[in-house]
Amino acid sequence: MKVCIAGASGYTGIELLRILELYKEIEINQITSRQYSGKALKEAFPFFNKSKYQDLIFAEEVDATSSDIYFLCLPHEPSLELVKTLFENNKIIIDLSAAYRIKNKEVYPEYYGFEHRFPELLEVAVYGLVEVFRNDIKSAKIIANPGCYPTATILGLYPLAKEGKIQDDTIIVNALSGISGAGRHLKEDFMYPESFSNAYAYNITKHRHTPEMEDVIKRISDKDVKVRFTPHIIPVSRGMLSTITVKTDLSKKQLRDLYFDYYEKEYFIRLQDRPVRIKEVLGTNFCDIFVDKDEKTGYAVITSAIDNLSKGASFQAVQNMNIILGFEESYNLKNLPIYP
Amino acid sequence: MKVCIAGASGYTGIELLRILELYKEIEINQITSRQYSGKALKEAFPFFNKSKYQDLIFAEEVDATSSDIYFLCLPHEPSLELVKTLFENNKIIIDLSAAYRIKNKEVYPEYYGFEHRFPELLEVAVYGLVEVFRNDIKSAKIIANPGCYPTATILGLYPLAKEGKIQDDTIIVNALSGISGAGRHLKEDFMYPESFSNAYAYNITKHRHTPEMEDVIKRISDKDVKVRFTPHIIPVSRGMLSTITVKTDLSKKQLRDLYFDYYEKEYFIRLQDRPVRIKEVLGTNFCDIFVDKDEKTGYAVITSAIDNLSKGASFQAVQNMNIILGFEESYNLKNLPIYP
Amino acid sequence: MKVCIAGASGYTGIELLRILELYKEIEINQITSRQYSGKALKEAFPFFNKSKYQDLIFAEEVDATSSDIYFLCLPHEPSLELVKTLFENNKIIIDLSAAYRIKNKEVYPEYYGFEHRFPELLEVAVYGLVEVFRNDIKSAKIIANPGCYPTATILGLYPLAKEGKIQDDTIIVNALSGISGAGRHLKEDFMYPESFSNAYAYNITKHRHTPEMEDVIKRISDKDVKVRFTPHIIPVSRGMLSTITVKTDLSKKQLRDLYFDYYEKEYFIRLQDRPVRIKEVLGTNFCDIFVDKDEKTGYAVITSAIDNLSKGASFQAVQNMNIILGFEESYNLKNLPIYP
Amino acid sequence: MKVCIAGASGYTGIELLRILELYKEIEINQITSRQYSGKALKEAFPFFNKSKYQDLIFAEEVDATSSDIYFLCLPHEPSLELVKTLFENNKIIIDLSAAYRIKNKEVYPEYYGFEHRFPELLEVAVYGLVEVFRNDIKSAKIIANPGCYPTATILGLYPLAKEGKIQDDTIIVNALSGISGAGRHLKEDFMYPESFSNAYAYNITKHRHTPEMEDVIKRISDKDVKVRFTPHIIPVSRGMLSTITVKTDLSKKQLRDLYFDYYEKEYFIRLQDRPVRIKEVLGTNFCDIFVDKDEKTGYAVITSAIDNLSKGASFQAVQNMNIILGFEESYNLKNLPIYP
Repeated sequence: MKVCIAGASGYTGIELLRILELYKEIEINQITSRQYSGKALKEAFPFFNKSKYQDLIFAEEVDATSSDIYFLCLPHEPSLELVKTLFENNKIIIDLSAAYRIKNKEVYPEYYGFEHRFPELLEVAVYGLVEVFRNDIKSAKIIANPGCYPTATILGLYPLAKEGKIQDDTIIVNALSGISGAGRHLKEDFMYPESFSNAYAYNITKHRHTPEMEDVIKRISDKDVKVRFTPHIIPVSRGMLSTITVKTDLSKKQLRDLYFDYYEKEYFIRLQDRPVRIKEVLGTNFCDIFVDKDEKTGYAVITSAIDNLSKGASFQAVQNMNIILGFEESYNLKNLPIYP
Repeated sequence: MKVCIAGASGYTGIELLRILELYKEIEINQITSRQYSGKALKEAFPFFNKSKYQDLIFAEEVDATSSDIYFLCLPHEPSLELVKTLFENNKIIIDLSAAYRIKNKEVYPEYYGFEHRFPELLEVAVYGLVEVFRNDIKSAKIIANPGCYPTATILGLYPLAKEGKIQDDTIIVNALSGISGAGRHLKEDFMYPESFSNAYAYNITKHRHTPEMEDVIKRISDKDVKVRFTPHIIPVSRGMLSTITVKTDLSKKQLRDLYFDYYEKEYFIRLQDRPVRIKEVLGTNFCDIFVDKDEKTGYAVITSAIDNLSKGASFQAVQNMNIILGFEESYNLKNLPIYP
Repeated sequence: MKVCIAGASGYTGIELLRILELYKEIEINQITSRQYSGKALKEAFPFFNKSKYQDLIFAEEVDATSSDIYFLCLPHEPSLELVKTLFENNKIIIDLSAAYRIKNKEVYPEYYGFEHRFPELLEVAVYGLVEVFRNDIKSAKIIANPGCYPTATILGLYPLAKEGKIQDDTIIVNALSGISGAGRHLKEDFMYPESFSNAYAYNITKHRHTPEMEDVIKRISDKDVKVRFTPHIIPVSRGMLSTITVKTDLSKKQLRDLYFDYYEKEYFIRLQDRPVRIKEVLGTNFCDIFVDKDEKTGYAVITSAIDNLSKGASFQAVQNMNIILGFEESYNLKNLPIYP
Repeated sequence: MKVCIAGASGYTGIELLRILELYKEIEINQITSRQYSGKALKEAFPFFNKSKYQDLIFAEEVDATSSDIYFLCLPHEPSLELVKTLFENNKIIIDLSAAYRIKNKEVYPEYYGFEHRFPELLEVAVYGLVEVFRNDIKSAKIIANPGCYPTATILGLYPLAKEGKIQDDTIIVNALSGISGAGRHLKEDFMYPESFSNAYAYNITKHRHTPEMEDVIKRISDKDVKVRFTPHIIPVSRGMLSTITVKTDLSKKQLRDLYFDYYEKEYFIRLQDRPVRIKEVLGTNFCDIFVDKDEKTGYAVITSAIDNLSKGASFQAVQNMNIILGFEESYNLKNLPIYP
């Protein structure tokens, strides 16, 4: 089984290389990167010294025929095109961009700046949030791998949404993200001296992940719900915490029972007994969830933690691959977090 | 003018020492500390080497007569008693504990674990949030210096609350705090290796600052409002960000105009043009505020940043002292943040 | 094969749990901890939720008979005794303390505060630095697992020392360590707010790892060499960098050739082309080394990086176990670092 | 007195703005920046909101006539030229670049890549290390403000060098620097996710500060001494620690007495009783020094800490200005560090 990682020099591409290293059944035969084109993996990233792929050379362009599985870690618009080509070549496609995540194509011009030219493929693509759409994934040809904020938030809301227990028409989501969420892009705000000791909200009234969350919650709950989403940057490299404040008439006990019923058997969902901590999921495929209820105000408060690059991106992509290839879903993904 | 700092070896005590060093009009003649009793300031904290107070010796107990002004950086219950004694001695008292912050004495047993034995002094004490209660402070004998979360949150809400423009009966407040907010206490959670890369909510359904916020907002707005407050710890030493999500029918422009009217002349309130950042207020007495409106959901989103140990504690205490002593309010407090 | 981890709630114990989780051939049947005695692993450390050992209960004391292999993550003196007992019980012992590391028993009273009561076992114990003493390890009954600073430093010096190419009688070693190196002990210096932004040397004229380094270098080089060792704490959780300044008459090319000859085939030694970085070895068993020569002064400068808890402690312990049990030496230890 | 800050949008320029804000005797009438040309200070850096200079506009080019004092925070080569012009205009010049630091002009082509075209001004320029060259500074027209590594290192060596008590011909200097030392330049290595948890040596065999240190030590000691200098990057924003290992026949007591004699009266040198910590000098003009002696090897180990942007750059520049203008040397520079 031959694998291509397109855009392999970004953070999610490197995370894929790290995890796919463990597979004996798979050979990575292509990695691409504009920035490092012509260089060996080890040369660009010395921490791949002694990796079995250390001498693999970054290509500039993707060869759409020579691999069987394509992980796309590209910007949204190049991904839009490439998926089309690969689909026509009958490849297995796991797209980490947003190009095929949202069923409502009207969202794309406003939030992504381009027309979605292949709406027919939007119907083909399966939203790769395994714990919600597992059955559809088994036979998927195109996986639209979820965004990081949507992964944490939707998993935190899923039982409530599915059971129709969200009362208000607006859900308040405040989320914290590590800086790696911005990708491997040079920007003064993300330099160490400026990020250090800092924290702030951003994109308060317009963030691309808001329509993605609303789109999926609607599909789950069959109800139009708005998400009041305020993302924040905090000074960590990786990690994401979604704090969801949502009206419900379930009591604390009912809430916890509901989440237990939905998630007890999900290997990658860990219901915790105290508010979840991002450190405890770093480098893993776990989504930790804690549910609480404030009886004075009638709000449930749900905190949900993932590693934005692992469960929020590359590990989830591999979880999807495992399902498609018929491996055990947790194959090579059961590692615990490094502590401390 | 002689000053005592009781509990001078905690973070707020040290912050007071640092800022009071600048005053020629004042002499610190007492510092107390259980932990360092008998030691010189410089010996306990070598960074006070070359300070004019370097040789001052920590006493074990407060002498309630030999100073004119008392800053109390003590736990809540010892503060409760000491304020009483100092008040009888006719001293100027600036209490950084919560012992006299909340007018409704019923709150104390539930949230602080003790009966408030001096309710008559609750009436005497002035809540030292200068931008709101400045007039009362001028002649105050007891200043109840505000908590850090309430400082950031109430300043972020004040114009809306005062003008009666809060629509819902619940305000959603999600706040981020640096670890110094927990004080100088040994706890595994706050060790570097465990705090590093971490972030989490805590005390979700019961935090002591919730009734403080509700009490003050009620006094400002004359309306019962509940605060759905979710505090979080993030890996910074200092700094606090309050993200307030509140229903209002004011438009974005009306909101900004309102805040401009209230705050343009306040030296220590800086209205910013983009979401505020904690790094930009560290070590200063500034409260930075950014107001935004999400027209789709009808919520205003206000972000408000302070340094929890400066404006959120010791600098605000000194701002109060400046007013009481008739100094210019910003005297010795105009420093800009260190960058980067 | 049954395994006991004594002192399993410290950082090295937890690191062992994390890595031994991967072994199907092994069952951990005992974990001990004073602090968490009677608690389940998952209860004490929620990040072990979903681990196969999540329900294992911490015992207070070690049962010296019911396991086959004992990893000791205890203070030095309790380890001294327990090794003796386990040796008499004919167990495989991997001791992460310093109790059996130094052949010269005179060192113990001065540096560790106790007499070494079992000098005969000092002869039995094998210093578990695999790349140097691999042959002795195969049949070892007691492994004295090396200290973190000695691991990084001796691996950085080994080819030079072995070939007799160290000219001066003093080697200058400046090393940087993450805070986890101090163990999971409460100390104000190691609280986040105080560690943050900090860096400093410590134990400048007397550090326990100095005689350990001198003892091993003497065994390698058959020459008395002194180490002028200055350790520093830097604000990272894990990671260790040893910067070795040593007089040699080898040229830069000769140096690099020598290290290539010694280390090219060592899986866990990665010779890098630029100064090594601690981030690139975190959570791995790699020791990255870069050698350079300053022709103006005649000094070679060698930088050597490890993760103090992995190659510097628990992973190296498992590497030793792999050899003793006849597994492939790198079995379960080939993971790459998490990036970024 | 009118002041120009050329290159005011870099870290040292901003540090100057922050400190010069405190001077009533001075008016900053020019700030320049390529990147922010045409923008107001507050617009480029919102943390200058409420500063008295908030509305000052960044100019693209320096006006060499309209100010009295010029602080140059420019790259080395533009500084070389501008100093010449300003000198001819009879201005007071404080140059934070290296263009006039080294008396031996032969160093420039090799280390800085340009010929020093104004060797006559090299004679005029005074090396602005106040504690060593104070007398020359009083009447200086051109101050060559010292580099950060040389400031920490030379102050750590000065008494030994001056007294001729350095035995060997090579001094071993290992230093740690915060990332701000690299300036406000976009580089992947300095992004938060890549800097975080990292530490490494760099420029091991050739760093520009080596000849600067050797040049000044020679002037102090009248002896040719080589410096074996290994700088390291650690994950802090600011702060610098120089660990100096140097052969001397002075005993520990003699060493400490010598340093006491030299430095007791220096306000900005603090001799500490334990190894110095960078956190304790951040944002201040202090240089903390601790001297120790390892009798076994005959080496003294001196640790010296500064803030690279304060004493290592902008505060030292202001200390020079204070002297030239006849102010008290410590005027506006006596602030203590922020803690924690």
